[in-house]
Amino acid sequence: MSVFVVVGASRGIGGAVAQHLVEQDHDVLAVSRTPAPMGTWIQADIGRMDGVASVLNEVGDRPLDGLLFLGGIWETGAFTPHYRFLDSPIEETLQVIAVNLTAPIQLAQGLARNLAQAPNARIVLMGSMSGLPNAASPEVANTASKFGLQGAAEALNLSLAPMGISTVVVNPGNVATAEVEQDIADGTFPDQVPIPMADVIKTIDYALSVSRAAAPTSVSLQQTNPGH
Amino acid sequence: MSVFVVVGASRGIGGAVAQHLVEQDHDVLAVSRTPAPMGTWIQADIGRMDGVASVLNEVGDRPLDGLLFLGGIWETGAFTPHYRFLDSPIEETLQVIAVNLTAPIQLAQGLARNLAQAPNARIVLMGSMSGLPNAASPEVANTASKFGLQGAAEALNLSLAPMGISTVVVNPGNVATAEVEQDIADGTFPDQVPIPMADVIKTIDYALSVSRAAAPTSVSLQQTNPGH
Amino acid sequence: MSVFVVVGASRGIGGAVAQHLVEQDHDVLAVSRTPAPMGTWIQADIGRMDGVASVLNEVGDRPLDGLLFLGGIWETGAFTPHYRFLDSPIEETLQVIAVNLTAPIQLAQGLARNLAQAPNARIVLMGSMSGLPNAASPEVANTASKFGLQGAAEALNLSLAPMGISTVVVNPGNVATAEVEQDIADGTFPDQVPIPMADVIKTIDYALSVSRAAAPTSVSLQQTNPGH
Amino acid sequence: MSVFVVVGASRGIGGAVAQHLVEQDHDVLAVSRTPAPMGTWIQADIGRMDGVASVLNEVGDRPLDGLLFLGGIWETGAFTPHYRFLDSPIEETLQVIAVNLTAPIQLAQGLARNLAQAPNARIVLMGSMSGLPNAASPEVANTASKFGLQGAAEALNLSLAPMGISTVVVNPGNVATAEVEQDIADGTFPDQVPIPMADVIKTIDYALSVSRAAAPTSVSLQQTNPGH
Repeated sequence: MSVFVVVGASRGIGGAVAQHLVEQDHDVLAVSRTPAPMGTWIQADIGRMDGVASVLNEVGDRPLDGLLFLGGIWETGAFTPHYRFLDSPIEETLQVIAVNLTAPIQLAQGLARNLAQAPNARIVLMGSMSGLPNAASPEVANTASKFGLQGAAEALNLSLAPMGISTVVVNPGNVATAEVEQDIADGTFPDQVPIPMADVIKTIDYALSVSRAAAPTSVSLQQTNPGH
Repeated sequence: MSVFVVVGASRGIGGAVAQHLVEQDHDVLAVSRTPAPMGTWIQADIGRMDGVASVLNEVGDRPLDGLLFLGGIWETGAFTPHYRFLDSPIEETLQVIAVNLTAPIQLAQGLARNLAQAPNARIVLMGSMSGLPNAASPEVANTASKFGLQGAAEALNLSLAPMGISTVVVNPGNVATAEVEQDIADGTFPDQVPIPMADVIKTIDYALSVSRAAAPTSVSLQQTNPGH
Repeated sequence: MSVFVVVGASRGIGGAVAQHLVEQDHDVLAVSRTPAPMGTWIQADIGRMDGVASVLNEVGDRPLDGLLFLGGIWETGAFTPHYRFLDSPIEETLQVIAVNLTAPIQLAQGLARNLAQAPNARIVLMGSMSGLPNAASPEVANTASKFGLQGAAEALNLSLAPMGISTVVVNPGNVATAEVEQDIADGTFPDQVPIPMADVIKTIDYALSVSRAAAPTSVSLQQTNPGH
Repeated sequence: MSVFVVVGASRGIGGAVAQHLVEQDHDVLAVSRTPAPMGTWIQADIGRMDGVASVLNEVGDRPLDGLLFLGGIWETGAFTPHYRFLDSPIEETLQVIAVNLTAPIQLAQGLARNLAQAPNARIVLMGSMSGLPNAASPEVANTASKFGLQGAAEALNLSLAPMGISTVVVNPGNVATAEVEQDIADGTFPDQVPIPMADVIKTIDYALSVSRAAAPTSVSLQQTNPGH
């Protein structure tokens, strides 16, 4: 049995992964603003510094096998024709960067000593295809945060390798969360086949299964039918 | 004669570029915390939201030919053996991301309508070799911000192209600023040959000289003798 | 039971993967110059056009679930201080590019109609960390071929998606093949911990297990202790 | 006055650059199959090994300031809906890789000692946007060769730095050569604004003007209006 902190565990990818880990008899510390349906809920808004602090406080000095940062936010109207950079308020830019980029850095820093106690600790960060070179989407804050996350992961691998902690970024296309399926159904997103959640779970299981001698650092997972 | 906003104009790369542009008879709005020795000084701490706001206020609705974001900060002890991720205070992470990543996004957004009035407007962002894939340095916040800047530039190109504004990131190794030369002289940095400032100026002159039909989006400039 | 063509199946990564697939009761068509110890041996030197042709001839119109291109060659003295670009004969450059880059393109082309008959066909290409941006090694032909392979994979994904075929490149550091372990033991390579073969096999199993709706396109697998 | 070998000098980008260099009073050794209208013509088909050999023979031990590899070929029907990977004959794949990738490696190797005699020698390689990560076009051989060229450039920088030779790849979108303008005029290519040749020349002038202490390694030059 391993112990994982799963951030964004109330729904979407984080919710599905948390449920999968609980079904595998792992111990899940489920971080989210709204109640998480499984594991031990840690209520926190990780877009706020006191939210991150409360997560660190709740985890305490408990050894951890993994930090899975699976949350993420984006601009209003993102990935639709309604997004316009010039109309995005400054507060939105700040919030997207705080949640998607600053929070995982702060959590990795605050939990590094917990992770260092595990025999084979992993940090898993949910990136995006739009965080990769020449694959940006027009959403400036979200794209900047997802590129930034790639950099954070590389730097974390350099900084935390001596503690036996490796970091992987998983970069999927659109995943079949309830929200994405709704967006496709109501025409907000163009018709497409999102990535089945089972494939995302396989990806994370794979990343967690690799031995301590190797570090999967990046996995890109495209949609076969992205619908454009 | 063109009009440029140069951020970080009091010293370093920004100072040298501002001086060069003034010598070429351009009009320079020189943004910095401490007095800028040339151009029209706009006093602002762009790591603070009210600092960015005061820049926008000072520029007003004046047409701009370019926004040159040439400032940047990094962690205490960065690029030396003294840097340790776990010892970097959270305030430092927040400040590095605010100055290096959030500020250029906010300035680009706030000045886009000024730039759209020029016949061939350019945004020039000072990146870094450590913002490129597989070239990260261990400094987590700085690396994350520099990767993020690449993403911001790609997204800005997508979002601002209809307004006739293109964005380029210049990614140099260590540049021969007074600070870097001092760091080499006193052994803080290993012995090396930093990039001559004249080469950085040539790079920016090149980027500004390209016609409206083309957009140099990325220029990498390595040190021939990086000293390691 | 699935049917796989495994190229480079006589030893190293190809040999280990072929054995694993046979143990999982899959049908393996084992391509190599020297006899392959398992599966159905197809004798071929894929660095020669008639070698590729003989593979295509042997496979015939048999449906295939996967093409696993796991072979590769490099310059004499590669990855040691003995390699010098100016001393590498032209024939070596030609041969490295023929085996590492031209052969997988030709095999993908020649076997595409076989793969299109499978419900979820995958092409797996063995890349290298040194095929990624800013991670080149000085071996010019090998690095060029490994970068080229990334490009081939991207283009294959664009060209073969309508046929239901997806392509993934696996980019590992040094893998614990018999040759690499010998090179470490005798000091040809610096002391290091190579990637366990079991982790490479897990990576390929993962890539093959993803559903048809998703395509893992790139997996990077670093050594935790690369020895430098 | 400097001495440059310009490959592909009979027309297109190579022809325009050769003419520009001659106008600047430089000495140009113009390599092409058909007669080059300026400089000293070296007749050679660099897609053949004896073609490369004849270039090396003609240059002899003459010191060189630069090797500008500005030629390139692609598949029949490339960049139009007529291209189909499965219909591209093997000979075409071989030829595209030979001209676009193998030839520049062989020329760089064969001319390195000539370049090492110059005070500040540069190799300039004509890449392509489609040689960059996540920017592939479906043309498999061309994309593979252009990615490969990026890798060759990185490895050349590692291998030839001790000789004082640096290598830069210029990655443009469609350039306004006579062929491209014809393709747009007759509808083979969609309506678009190609990159003015003057901007490509500025890019090469910039790359050649940087001091020996710095090495521009990569310049990306997008079309502002790519027409899709």
